[in-house]
Amino acid sequence: MKKTTRILLGHGSGGRLTHNFIKQVLLEKLKNPILGELADSAVINYKEQVAFTTDSFVVSPLFFPGGDIGKLSVSGTVNDLVMLGAVPEYLSLALIVEEGLEQKILERIICSVAIQAKNSRVQIVTGDTKVVERLAADKLFINTSGLGRLISSRRLSLKGISPGDKIIITGNIAEHGLSILAKRKELGLNFNIKSDCASLNGLIIPLLRITKAIKFMRDPTRGGIATTLNEISEGSGLGIILEEKDIPISPKVRAASELLGIDPLYVANEGKALLVVEPKEAQRIVAVLRKNPLGRNAKIIGTVKKTPRGRVVLRTAFNTERILDMLTSDPLPRIC
Amino acid sequence: MKKTTRILLGHGSGGRLTHNFIKQVLLEKLKNPILGELADSAVINYKEQVAFTTDSFVVSPLFFPGGDIGKLSVSGTVNDLVMLGAVPEYLSLALIVEEGLEQKILERIICSVAIQAKNSRVQIVTGDTKVVERLAADKLFINTSGLGRLISSRRLSLKGISPGDKIIITGNIAEHGLSILAKRKELGLNFNIKSDCASLNGLIIPLLRITKAIKFMRDPTRGGIATTLNEISEGSGLGIILEEKDIPISPKVRAASELLGIDPLYVANEGKALLVVEPKEAQRIVAVLRKNPLGRNAKIIGTVKKTPRGRVVLRTAFNTERILDMLTSDPLPRIC
Repeated sequence: MKKTTRILLGHGSGGRLTHNFIKQVLLEKLKNPILGELADSAVINYKEQVAFTTDSFVVSPLFFPGGDIGKLSVSGTVNDLVMLGAVPEYLSLALIVEEGLEQKILERIICSVAIQAKNSRVQIVTGDTKVVERLAADKLFINTSGLGRLISSRRLSLKGISPGDKIIITGNIAEHGLSILAKRKELGLNFNIKSDCASLNGLIIPLLRITKAIKFMRDPTRGGIATTLNEISEGSGLGIILEEKDIPISPKVRAASELLGIDPLYVANEGKALLVVEPKEAQRIVAVLRKNPLGRNAKIIGTVKKTPRGRVVLRTAFNTERILDMLTSDPLPRIC
Repeated sequence: MKKTTRILLGHGSGGRLTHNFIKQVLLEKLKNPILGELADSAVINYKEQVAFTTDSFVVSPLFFPGGDIGKLSVSGTVNDLVMLGAVPEYLSLALIVEEGLEQKILERIICSVAIQAKNSRVQIVTGDTKVVERLAADKLFINTSGLGRLISSRRLSLKGISPGDKIIITGNIAEHGLSILAKRKELGLNFNIKSDCASLNGLIIPLLRITKAIKFMRDPTRGGIATTLNEISEGSGLGIILEEKDIPISPKVRAASELLGIDPLYVANEGKALLVVEPKEAQRIVAVLRKNPLGRNAKIIGTVKKTPRGRVVLRTAFNTERILDMLTSDPLPRIC
């Protein structure tokens, strides 16, 4: 029988085991010249405006249909940079590992980080590994921080939003959250829903290069599109009317949401963006998005209005209206 | 009786509770214009070479003599930048909080982050908060990533080290690790040892501006000076002779180490640096360091030699020699 190699506290000691782990697992899978220097910081030569972001990932389970914590850790931070109009370039990778985690699980996740970094054209240039004793963490948490150059000196900002602007979603909603929920064994469900987890630079960056009509972007992760649209309305001091009938959602996700009694407007996405755009270019932007597989279900789903100030209104399929608030409690903890 | 406010899973939901927490606790205590934008990434305008680093902090207990996890999270990342010869400027702050942690404990730690950031002249410009359910993490983990501008185009590197170079430590060793150990209640010890936890930019950056004789620096955290010196000897392919009698150590730390049977050469420091310097300037550098309270016990403790290649040799007070290896297991987990 093959022995299972487990992570020991010594892997986080900073000593020999840490060194071997870094060399044999991390450097091997993530190799690039900057990381290879193994210095305390990566040094990057910049001449432009730089976006800087951080995100920790605590998703449970570690593996889910459509992805895993490694893929998510890269795409989540890549997307945060893209939302600012920055081309993602450099990521850090910090692991907090529970003692006793099987090393092959960790290696599988690092492979996934490496693949997603390659596909997203970013380099992991600095890192950190900590190991905590059994039960002091749940298997693995990952933090990635990221740097990217802004492609334009014109900043995307909530302040640029005006009444009449259109709201676009780049595709079907609620897939990430529902894939996690379905995967959690205690529910015994099998909806066969895949997470939408994806890096959005390939979809969004080319678009930013061909139009100046995009005023603001945000990825609707925790709290779903309802929460993100509330952030946009609060931050801009304007109202948003959301058309329920126009919100793209797959039949599977709709059925699963109804069965579980969950409102998909509040469920996390990990490969979607909300765009606020000038009305005259909205249709063209949707058409461009749809040419990319990651944007093939893009739709205009709402309009910015003067009132109600700072609120989001959902116009339902039955033509009634109701205020859509932010998520107030967490029906789905550890979704990302 | 006053009600204790506790962190709930909803604080990490991305919804209303997250927003209120960010506004009322994080923005309030860490305020600066870049963070105030609450965008997905911070945008920083750089024109020079940039160092980028990341570190997670999982120290237990959260509070210890001389500091807490908040102070450590700032100074640890500040020091990683300083060791590359960069002026620390911008930090991210990512919290992983266990559901049920008292909010006032978290606020005390955020205050400590704010104070240490101010004292270290860095700004917290982006952040993230995740909450995991009870027992999925131990109270609080913090990741900080950092950016700093290199003060010189001349890179500090292991490759620049030559035989004859002197090794300087900026002060007494092993204080951080022993303060943590003593604080852990199960030991019932009271050595009254304070952690040396400190940001080193005020000590090191001015020194880098007045001398070109510093070839390499690293802060001897996990694994202590023995492990860091091994990294230096391995990375440079040269030998290091360490003079035991010259290593500065307080009588308290020496006594506690002996009592506990721990070798202080392997115990973590959080406010010290090891410098590899040209021999002719070594005395002057020590003299400059000693003018600063954080460097008042600075000493030359060793010399780089051609052989033994990649090894560290300790010449003991009795004039015997032994090979000093890296730390191989972790006698003190969760020291930082």
